Amino acid sequence: MCCPPILEGPLAEADARQLADLLKVLADSARLRLLSLIAARPGGEACACELIEPLGLSQPTVSHHLKVLTTAGLLHREQRGVWAYFRVEPEQLAGIREALTVTN
Amino acid sequence: MCCPPILEGPLAEADARQLADLLKVLADSARLRLLSLIAARPGGEACACELIEPLGLSQPTVSHHLKVLTTAGLLHREQRGVWAYFRVEPEQLAGIREALTVTN
Repeated sequence: MCCPPILEGPLAEADARQLADLLKVLADSARLRLLSLIAARPGGEACACELIEPLGLSQPTVSHHLKVLTTAGLLHREQRGVWAYFRVEPEQLAGIREALTVTN
Repeated sequence: MCCPPILEGPLAEADARQLADLLKVLADSARLRLLSLIAARPGGEACACELIEPLGLSQPTVSHHLKVLTTAGLLHREQRGVWAYFRVEPEQLAGIREALTVTN
């Protein structure tokens, strides 16, 4: 699970790189909107097919962003027939929040 | 203060862009290490001159990163004589954490 709190002592370079890589995945408005659209669906789950129109992006672009989010552990992907279904993985977001905790 | 929670309803494009821009500032290992080095100093404050050696980067590079962090509201900068002193602005980090809150 990502990552040690950045304000609780000097961050090692490897930990800083790991957290930076994860933040880079989040630092994209289309990907943030995808997470938010999926979470807002009934049951917190969405088919890739339901995400193309509200986002206003092409299907390959949406698929690419979904893949990046899934690889980073921010989405869970489940194949059902032709379509893949996605839900937000709260643990990975919680890990990022913990890393950004302000203690003093 | 940045930004609405991403998992509490579909995120507007402007809000998504604002949060993405702020996350881009954080999504850099040198900048994460700078925040962590500054917070770890006695009194949570550091002179720019104290940050060059532990980071192992050139002075212009460190100055650039400090400027980006300050412009984004993640650092507070105070000029004293020749040197600038920096401290972490906890409110901006807290805003990011809130935006990434998982409610369900």
